Formats: sequence, structure tokens, C-alpha cells
Amino acid sequence: MAGSTYGTLLKVMTWGESHGKGIGVVVDGCPAGLPLSESHVQEYLDRRKPGQSKFTTARSEGDRVEILSGVFEGKTTGAPIAMEVRNMDQRSHDYGNIMDVYRPGHADYTFDEKYGFRDYRGGGRSSGRETIGRVAAGAVACRLLKTLGISVGAYTRSVGEIEIDYASFDPDEIWRNRFYMPDAEAAARAEACLEKRMAEKDSCGGVVECVIRGLPAGVGEPVFEKLDAGLAKAMVSIGAVKGFEIGDGFAAARARGSENNDGFALTARDQEGNPLLKEKIVKKTNHSGGTLGGISDGSDLVLRAAFKPTPSIASPQSTVSRKGGETEICIKGRHDPIIVPRAVVVVEAMAALTVADLLLLSMSSRLDRIQSFFGR
Amino acid sequence: MAGSTYGTLLKVMTWGESHGKGIGVVVDGCPAGLPLSESHVQEYLDRRKPGQSKFTTARSEGDRVEILSGVFEGKTTGAPIAMEVRNMDQRSHDYGNIMDVYRPGHADYTFDEKYGFRDYRGGGRSSGRETIGRVAAGAVACRLLKTLGISVGAYTRSVGEIEIDYASFDPDEIWRNRFYMPDAEAAARAEACLEKRMAEKDSCGGVVECVIRGLPAGVGEPVFEKLDAGLAKAMVSIGAVKGFEIGDGFAAARARGSENNDGFALTARDQEGNPLLKEKIVKKTNHSGGTLGGISDGSDLVLRAAFKPTPSIASPQSTVSRKGGETEICIKGRHDPIIVPRAVVVVEAMAALTVADLLLLSMSSRLDRIQSFFGR
Amino acid sequence: MAGSTYGTLLKVMTWGESHGKGIGVVVDGCPAGLPLSESHVQEYLDRRKPGQSKFTTARSEGDRVEILSGVFEGKTTGAPIAMEVRNMDQRSHDYGNIMDVYRPGHADYTFDEKYGFRDYRGGGRSSGRETIGRVAAGAVACRLLKTLGISVGAYTRSVGEIEIDYASFDPDEIWRNRFYMPDAEAAARAEACLEKRMAEKDSCGGVVECVIRGLPAGVGEPVFEKLDAGLAKAMVSIGAVKGFEIGDGFAAARARGSENNDGFALTARDQEGNPLLKEKIVKKTNHSGGTLGGISDGSDLVLRAAFKPTPSIASPQSTVSRKGGETEICIKGRHDPIIVPRAVVVVEAMAALTVADLLLLSMSSRLDRIQSFFGR
Amino acid sequence: MAGSTYGTLLKVMTWGESHGKGIGVVVDGCPAGLPLSESHVQEYLDRRKPGQSKFTTARSEGDRVEILSGVFEGKTTGAPIAMEVRNMDQRSHDYGNIMDVYRPGHADYTFDEKYGFRDYRGGGRSSGRETIGRVAAGAVACRLLKTLGISVGAYTRSVGEIEIDYASFDPDEIWRNRFYMPDAEAAARAEACLEKRMAEKDSCGGVVECVIRGLPAGVGEPVFEKLDAGLAKAMVSIGAVKGFEIGDGFAAARARGSENNDGFALTARDQEGNPLLKEKIVKKTNHSGGTLGGISDGSDLVLRAAFKPTPSIASPQSTVSRKGGETEICIKGRHDPIIVPRAVVVVEAMAALTVADLLLLSMSSRLDRIQSFFGR
Repeated sequence: MAGSTYGTLLKVMTWGESHGKGIGVVVDGCPAGLPLSESHVQEYLDRRKPGQSKFTTARSEGDRVEILSGVFEGKTTGAPIAMEVRNMDQRSHDYGNIMDVYRPGHADYTFDEKYGFRDYRGGGRSSGRETIGRVAAGAVACRLLKTLGISVGAYTRSVGEIEIDYASFDPDEIWRNRFYMPDAEAAARAEACLEKRMAEKDSCGGVVECVIRGLPAGVGEPVFEKLDAGLAKAMVSIGAVKGFEIGDGFAAARARGSENNDGFALTARDQEGNPLLKEKIVKKTNHSGGTLGGISDGSDLVLRAAFKPTPSIASPQSTVSRKGGETEICIKGRHDPIIVPRAVVVVEAMAALTVADLLLLSMSSRLDRIQSFFGR
Repeated sequence: MAGSTYGTLLKVMTWGESHGKGIGVVVDGCPAGLPLSESHVQEYLDRRKPGQSKFTTARSEGDRVEILSGVFEGKTTGAPIAMEVRNMDQRSHDYGNIMDVYRPGHADYTFDEKYGFRDYRGGGRSSGRETIGRVAAGAVACRLLKTLGISVGAYTRSVGEIEIDYASFDPDEIWRNRFYMPDAEAAARAEACLEKRMAEKDSCGGVVECVIRGLPAGVGEPVFEKLDAGLAKAMVSIGAVKGFEIGDGFAAARARGSENNDGFALTARDQEGNPLLKEKIVKKTNHSGGTLGGISDGSDLVLRAAFKPTPSIASPQSTVSRKGGETEICIKGRHDPIIVPRAVVVVEAMAALTVADLLLLSMSSRLDRIQSFFGR
Repeated sequence: MAGSTYGTLLKVMTWGESHGKGIGVVVDGCPAGLPLSESHVQEYLDRRKPGQSKFTTARSEGDRVEILSGVFEGKTTGAPIAMEVRNMDQRSHDYGNIMDVYRPGHADYTFDEKYGFRDYRGGGRSSGRETIGRVAAGAVACRLLKTLGISVGAYTRSVGEIEIDYASFDPDEIWRNRFYMPDAEAAARAEACLEKRMAEKDSCGGVVECVIRGLPAGVGEPVFEKLDAGLAKAMVSIGAVKGFEIGDGFAAARARGSENNDGFALTARDQEGNPLLKEKIVKKTNHSGGTLGGISDGSDLVLRAAFKPTPSIASPQSTVSRKGGETEICIKGRHDPIIVPRAVVVVEAMAALTVADLLLLSMSSRLDRIQSFFGR
Repeated sequence: MAGSTYGTLLKVMTWGESHGKGIGVVVDGCPAGLPLSESHVQEYLDRRKPGQSKFTTARSEGDRVEILSGVFEGKTTGAPIAMEVRNMDQRSHDYGNIMDVYRPGHADYTFDEKYGFRDYRGGGRSSGRETIGRVAAGAVACRLLKTLGISVGAYTRSVGEIEIDYASFDPDEIWRNRFYMPDAEAAARAEACLEKRMAEKDSCGGVVECVIRGLPAGVGEPVFEKLDAGLAKAMVSIGAVKGFEIGDGFAAARARGSENNDGFALTARDQEGNPLLKEKIVKKTNHSGGTLGGISDGSDLVLRAAFKPTPSIASPQSTVSRKGGETEICIKGRHDPIIVPRAVVVVEAMAALTVADLLLLSMSSRLDRIQSFFGR
């Protein structure tokens, strides 16, 4: 079955393995007329690239994207946009030791069960390099959303036990520290924690939070194609994600109705504080995280994804060989001690793909708007 | 866009409003030869039916299902299975006060924004009665899975702050208390808590946990159609769900890699302790919750859904009228002070639909198995 | 697999068997605000109803449709529209003789091979009564298209060897004769031909033509989701259809490029001859049948479906029993000697569903239009 | 909307323009374990390559395919298979004259209407070069089917008015003449006809026929996903196809039921004449073309696609400029005077993709077979 395909109107298909010839994606259904160049996509890819700090693998990939189709004279044409990154630094000899032994916390065993064999080089298709396709496609989706006044921004909310303090939330700080944390003090503590984990040949997880601003009310479809349901799938489809929340998430399960409900009010100001021609309805709080009944309510979408610790650790672990027999394994080679910092842009990408698709889908919900669209 | 449709091979389309003529579902793609009768489906519907206790609405619906197609001589034929429940007790006069006023925490406002108007009677399509279609379809999926040795069982893990104690986990207790909690003592505390909330005209949330046993390894598709991603969407598509976890969930984000990884071992016993002909690979722990790389690993699937408190509360709340103007609302009428107990079977239904679909999809992953299926 | 589902944005799922409890359809994704009542749908169903003439079966079904959901205060709400027709006159004793014997030209044998057994009563799911669901859904699609200035009209082009003469094409005549032929003289000859076939215990095929007017240019998606490709699938999915043509069809394969190409010109008049504010591009001829590169070109869509003769004939035919052994069969009971007249409305229904879906899908092709849709 | 995507379980997404950087396809959902190399795919691409004869364009493209993913140690892994052909000989200066003028019979006008502008170089996305992606994917599908005992073979049935004579049908001849016609004498006449058309600066259409052998009974899903309906869409999605037939096609509409029905019989021999262990059911004739009720009946699938004449002709044609004003155009440059010979392999490709997808989908139709698949 075709698991590498995502979306309905804005559809993507990703491909590629860690140590194959390259990684890529085709974006089918992007509206015509969007200004797009390789540099727009590269900017996103650079944020997930290895070698950015001592907490990311030293693999020296340039990860340069090439756009092969769908753009003419600087604008998208409506045709599929094929993008690819050729693999350069493959060092497949590093991975000989995992050919026959199942790494705990990885997909080696399940791939073998599912397919009868696997491309064991660097995890093959189940490698984190798979996300290159997501990020390239997500860059297109972000650009599309931007032309519609919608922004998507993610950051690290926690590293292990260390959580940001919203009282000192600083959006500019996100771009200053290697964890993409909006709190310099938390980032410093995270760095100390990570150093310790590395020394202990261990690894660390964390939580990424994502905020989508400017989405009009009415996006998301009742019942199964709810906006939050789509975002949940998008997030949990990212390797290593074990949990998802929207708005207050699990905390809502412990709250009272009177605390959790967001009352409505009227305002005569927009989000920037400028006066509006007409009063509009706003929520006084945002416990719901921007959706009601699975449909965007005009306030910020706020969601979180929980990442497990990097499963590749240098300490010895119990495992078995595919040829039979119990054994131990110590994972060598280049591995980030934490997935989170490089996953921030992946979260943005998946959120953008999901929101952009549902936004386009929402255009057919009202006959009056369809009639006016077609000038009837 | 068609948001009431779910699944790829085992596809369902639900329909119906709280106060319309009825609620129903069509299940398309159920394999032929499955013994099925209305009583099998009714058993599941009875678990979500109102009026089971003082914590569920007093609405006296029989919620009797009728199977209209797809079954012949007691077995499914491979044709679509249409099932419907006619609405009986509609009392639409109860809902006059919400015609023009947006209830906080409900989808009234977003439906109006999306569609231009709405069926305001009892929430219309966004009512919890919508889940009748899910549960009827889920009953079919559960029955299908059972013939393949797979069981799906959910229960209440927490009510507000009150959580079950796994040390005293008793599966039989699930069927004894009104919360479907596997811990009698926790259930008793939950009851006291709920009584208090009701007296305070307030409401309560909770967490439902679901375990799927007997699923073979290899189910779920890499990248976007991962088993856990599908389950995340399934859960968050249920009204009031704000969070999802698989395995250790958010706790994994705080754990170390050495704690979170599940080592592999060989065993010569099956789950019931009977000797096996051939040693098989098992995980020594199950922090992953039954998936690796989004593919089932042969251990139990364990997932959780966080439900927010019932948004309908009798205390006054700030809101606005669709005609303009701020106002207050006190929700009258029949409302459960907690959604969780009746949602337990909805969680089972959505889990079963998702797992059954991906199980069928997994049949085409290996050429050798396809060749042997077709006798080539 | 889910074969009874059709469409992407405007999605339908049909259900029901010839001699089950009923036949129905759910339409998911119909835009909100469309005025709709049972009488609108009934009008279409009445055109496919048995018992309209001596050339249609005498089965006295009222075929009354009931709308169960998705309509509130006379307008669609955006929620799924469930429609059903209960079976009344089932006389299942008529069909005992086909329980174990495969009728030539029917799906008895292939259903048994596919599903292991079948509902043999009146053909079960493969009965022509299955089209009730298509027609009910198509009625909704036609109504939606009408509000957008698009009409869908089909008629009988040929009955056996007898073809209409376009020189005497009379649209009003379609509604006057029992074949829905736009040529009274051809209809008279068809009637004589049919009487002869019935006397010979034989049956007859024919061709239905369908014209869609008012479709804007730009509908249909390049490569696989071309407008004509979608229409081809729609037509051939109707039982008994063996061929499809758009525009000149097979005749184009015998023509020269210089004959087949439609030159472009400018016009200052609309189709009704009224002056336009601005000159517009038109094709001087319409050999293409309204599409270029699979995208509507603003001229009339013209397509044809070839129907085989009714397979149920009273003459003896060679066949085999499912229990083993060769035998002969004479089909008794009520059978139209020609499928075509009752299929005319089915062709309209399938064309409308296809065009409406692609029309909605076409709304996301241009960024400038999307920006203006969302007021950005 | 995503029109370049095809299939459900075996899914493909094609990309690329005539004069962009290249053309390609990703095949998602191919079962693991299929032996595959670039030479297998190249063999199919070579059959659609330009420059094979004086009736095909002289464009000297090598059209060399590169497989970028999804194959490891010579076998498919179950991961997406990305294949691409880089464009070499682009000569875009040839196409300057069509930048602002709409070529009759081409998609120039409709692309402009749909997208607001277009890549005019060589037709951009609507060029026949788009079929490279289809053929590469089809090569994989053909190879998959072959391992299951199923062959797909197409040939030219007619060129303009010249049709093959089935009495002198010679399968080996298909590979000897430049038209892929199984009748040497017809091919000779076709060649003379084409020479004349070229001299007259005109072009010619034709019909391609395709036969699929070895398909088991039971493939295809009732109602909308019928095997023949899928094939109809597959064929009509190919540029220039204006008609589709299965079995007797339009001739069936003129036949009697007693002629058109295929009687059943029992045989103790297989198709090669070898004795069978058990008698099996066969049809005595094959007017149906291999399907009954849209489901394969175990006999050969026989289908036809009608191709219009090449729209690019050197004679002057009436047209308009996108800037306004009527004008004339004479198409210069390299153009086949007939599309058919190079389209034969495209027909095979699309038939194979469709059949392979429905074959995989058919695996979930019977519970007993699913139980035995999973060893339950």
C-alpha cells in the first residue's frame, strides 16, 4: 500500500533512502502562480540539515535541493513540482554491524517482518533522512500559506525534563540557540543536560510546539477530517513522535468544564490592535487551541508533538539477530543525542501541508461562495 | 469536502443529525463471509446509549439498529452494509435557546462560519449522537478482527484527577462500574467526584486507554500511513478528544533512550504461556506501545485519548449572539457531566476500524505472499 | 475494497440489493445552502422506475425516496445527505431457478468467484436496481450544477441498428416517446424493432448520448484526472456499458488532423446570441466534444455510452451449474427487452456527479483566485 | 487538485514537462521482493522513444531512465521507486511561435484558462513526453503481473481507415513493422497511407487494442470500481484518446442478446490445451471482453482505445492569439504524423497499472482467504 503519499488536493509523494541515490518528493496540486525558487526550499532544508552543532550528526551532506518541474519563469504552473536532494556522504561501511541485528527502538525488525528483507544501510527508508521530502514539500506549503496571510512557526517547548517558561517567551531567541527554544535560560540548561547525556552514552527526548496564525474560521471538515485529527496524524507520522496535543491537550482531561470552555466576546480590534470596520467574534481564551468541533475558530492553532529519545545509543542493549540467537548491540556512528532540534522544521512542514490541504478543501463548503467564485 | 468518510479498503460513511430522522452508516469493503446480525451491532450500540446511569443523559432512545443491506443468510456478502438507527425522542423544543447563541466549547460558531447556517437542534451533525455511526461500523470491524484472532478493548484510565492504579488492574471490573474503569476503588472515587461536579453545575474530563491484542507484526505503512499515525487521527476525530498517546506517549519525551528502548529477546512460549514450535522474537518491554517505525511489532498496541470536560454546563458563560451582541448562556437540558464512559466504546470502534483497514492493506506488502495467495 | 464509493469532494456511497430491504445512497460533501427536497430527487427516480411502458419491467415498485439527513429548513447543511428507497415488491420466489445456475451475460459467476457465495435474489447487488442510488445522488448533483448555470441532458441516440437523424433532432420529442429519443420517426421504428425482438424472445442494445451545457473552461485535471477520463469511468461503471466516446470518438481515429482539429475564433455573442461585453474565444467546430487536454474548453460536452442488449432473455442458453454439470437456462420473470430507456437518467446522473466533483476540484487551480476567495 | 496521481494500492505520481529538466515518476506501493533493474524499465521506454522511424519525431533523446530509490540488491524493497529521465535535446527556440497563439487540438487554450499562464515550451506538461512517467511505472506493473502469470500485450488495430485482418493475425509481426501491427499486409498499406498524409501536411489517427491474459476471475469491484470502468479511465486519460471499448464495445449495442451473451461450459483443458486436474468453468465465446458485472471472468481481457489524429499539422489553421485577435498558425518542428505506434506501449502501461492495482485490491474480498493468508 502506498504509505508515502499525503494529502487530498495538495498531495505529496516522498521517496528515498538514507544511503540510496537520493531523497525527494513530488508535490501535486500546488495552485498555479506561486513564486517559488530553490532558495525558498533550501532555507527550510538547511534547518533540518546535519552538522549544525555538536548535538547533530557530523554527516557532511550539503542537502542541496534541485527543482525539476512545475516551475516556469519563477512561478508554479499547477503541474507537479518534483524536488530532489542527491545523497553525497554515504559511508555505508558504518552500518555493516546492523545488517543482521535488530536495533532496539528502530524499525529494523518490523521492516523485516513486513517486507521479508530490508535496505539496512543507515535505516534505509525508515531513516530520519526521509523527512527531507516532507520538509521540501512543507516549504512549498508554507510559502502558499504565507500568500494567504497564514504563518506556521514551531519551536522546542521542552528537552527532557527542561521546559520553557512562557513568562520569558522570546520569539527571537528561537533563532539564537541550537535547540530552537524561545527561552535562553532553558536553552542553556538543555545544553548542560545534553552534554551529560552524551557523556553517559545516552539520549534525550522532548516536545515541539507549533503555532499557526491567521487561519480563517471554517477550515476542517466535521467527523473524520477534522483539522485537529489531520494534524494529529501529521505529527504522529513523524518518526519518534509518541504523543500529540491540541490546545490544553491532556491537561484538559483534568480540568473542569467551566475552566476549559472558551467564552465568546466581540472585539473591534484585530490581532495587531488596529481598529476593524466591523466588530468580530473572538474567544476570550484559547484552551481549545484554535478548533471547535474540529473546525478552525479564527484563533491561533496551538499543537504539540512529543518526541521519544534518539533510539541509537552507544551503550550496550539486548537484542536478537535475524539469523537467530540473542546478542548485544552498541550503536556506533553518527547520531544526534536528541532528535528535537532538527525536527522543529519537520513539525512546521507537516502542519503546513495539513493546513494548506484543508484550507483548499474548505473552499467548497458553501454554495453562495461557489456561485460567486464562478461568477454565477 | 467529504469529511464523513473513513478508511481505504474498509471504508465507512456516516450520516445523521441529533434531531433529524436518524443516524446511520454504510460500511463498504467488508470481506464476504463474516457472520453478522443486528444483535452483534446492538451490543456495541448499547454501550454508548444514553440513560445507562445518572451520569449519562436521560434521553430515552432505544437506539435500535437495522441492517438494510450487505448481509445474506447471516453472512456478509461483500456488498456495502447499510445500518441505521431512527431517532425517536427528539424533544427539539429543548434547544430553542441555542438557535442564535453560540455555546462555548461547542461547534455552533464554527459551523455557522463554515456553512453559513446550521441545524441547531441538539448540535445537529456535531452532536455526540454522530458516534452511533462510528460504533455500528466499529462493531463490524471488531467482529472481523475477532475472526482473525485480534481483540480490541478500551476502558477508562482516568476521570478528572482520579487515575486507575495498575497494581490493582482488574479486567472484569470494567464491566461492573458505570465508568468502565478496571479498578473498583478508583471508580468509587470517580463517582464521588462526579456527584460533586454535578452539584456545582460543572463537568469533568478523562482519559480512555485502549489495548489491541493479537495483531501480527507488519501492519502499518511507513512514512505517512503509520499505524500509530492512523490511530492518532482516529482518536482525535472523536469529538472532545484533545490529546493522543501511544505507548509511553509524552512520558517518553522525558525519558532517556536507555530507558525508553525496548530490548529484543527470544521466547519459546506464546502470550498464554503455551510452548511454541519455533522460538520467536519478542520485546522485553513495551514502551513503544506496539509499534516500531509505525509498523506493528507483535506486542500489544496500547494507546490513550484525552477527553475534555463536557462543554455543556448549567453555570452561566459569556458568549455572543449570531445576530450581534454579547450575552450569557446557561445550558439547560440533558447532558452527561462527563463524556468518557460512553466514549469508551467509541474509542474501541475507531481503533478497530483503523486497525482492520491497515491489516487488509498490509496484505500486499510482499511479493512472495501475493504469489502464494494467487497460487502462482 | 470499497467499490461502491465515488467522487473526491462530492462523494457518494451507494448500498442495497434487488431483493434486500432497500436501496440507498449517502452524498457526502454537497455544499451547504442548496435548496433540496424529496420531490427534486423523486423526479429523477421516476424516470428510471420500472413499469413505465411495455418495454420496462412490470415490477410495481413505487420507488419512493426518503431523505434522512443533511437537509434543514429546505436547504442542504453541508452534512451527508442520506437517501433511501425501501424495496416493496420483492417476489423472491421468481428467482429460485438462478440460485445454482449462472446466467450468461450476468455477474452470477464472477460474484461467486469473488465472494465465495452470492445473494442470488434478482441479481442481488449486481441488479440494475443498484442504479437507484446513483440516480438519487445524481439528482442532487444536477440540482447543484443548475444553480451554477450548468445543464446535463441525455437521450437515446440509437436502439439496435436504428439511429436518430440529427437533421430532425427535436429536444421536446425526448419527453414524448418511451425511448427518450429526440426523433419521433426513429422512435417509431425502434418500437417496431423492439416488438419483434420480444416476440423472438430476444433483446436489444443501444447508445445513449449526453450533452452538458454551460460548463466553464478549465474543469478537469491534467494527466490522470482528465474530465473525459472521469466521464469514461463514470459511464463504463454503469452495468451493461461496453463503450464510451467523447466528441467524435472512434470516428476521430479514421479522420484527418485537418478535419478533426477545431479552429479557434473570437465571438461577440453568447450561446443564446446575446451581445457580450467583451469578445470571447470559441471553437468553430466541436469535434473534441468539449475538452482539450482533458480540460473543459467552454463548448458543450458531448459523450456517448454503448449499452449491450439485456442479457436476460427467454430463449434457452448454454450454461453450467455451480454444483457442477453443464445445463440450459431460460430466464423467466420480468425483464426489460432493452436497458437503454431507463438508463438515460442513469447516464445523466453519472455525468453530473463527475462534472460537479471536477468543478469543485477546479477551484484550487489558481493562486490569484484562491487569494480573492479568501479576501487576501 | 492532484491530477498526476493514479492508483490506490499501487500508486504512481508522474511529473515533468517537455522542455523542463526531466520527466519522472514515483511508484508507491510496489510489493517487496520483485526483481527490478533499469534495463527492465528501459526496454519499455525504448518502445515509446522518438526517432524510431520516419513516422516518429526526429528528436534525439536517449530517454535513459535512472532508478533512484526503492530497489536494493536487485529487488524492490516496498519503498517508493523513483525513476527519472533527464531531458537532453530541448531546442526550445522551435516553440517560440506558439507562445501566444493557441494551437487547435492542443491544450494550450485550456491550460491558460485553468492556470492563468502556461509553460508553452513544447506543450509543457500537456506534451506527449508526459507519458514517459506512465511507461516507466507501467514497466514495473508489467513485471509484477508477469510474476503472477499475467501478460499484457497491445498492438495497433487500425491506422486511419486501414484495419488489421484477424484471419491473418500474426503476433510475431507486431515486432517487425513500425506500426506494431500484427498483420504485415495491413502495415504495408498503413505505411503508404501515412506517406501520403505527410505529403499533404496532414495527420492520421488509429486504434490500439490490448489483450490481458492469465488474470484470475474475481478482479474488479462492483458498482464504481469495475475493472472495465478502471480501464476506461486509464485509456481515456492518455492524451488524444477519444473512445474506449471492452469486448464487442459499440458493436454490442447493435447486437441481439442471444448473440452477445457468452454461454458457459465446462472444460478439462487449460488455455494451452494441457489436461487439468479438475474441470473448470469457461465461457464459450468472449463478447464480453473478459468481464461480467465489471469483474474479471477468467477469459482474456480485450480492450480498445481510439486515438485522434496528431493535432500538430503543417497546414494553416484558424486560431486566436492570447493577446486578442484572430490569426492563422502552421505548426513547425518535429511531430509524428500519427500518435498510435508510440502509444502502443502507453496503452500497455496504463492497462497494467490498472489491472495490477485491482488485483491487489481483490485480495481482501473473502474472509476465508484472509484468514488463511494470516494463518488463522
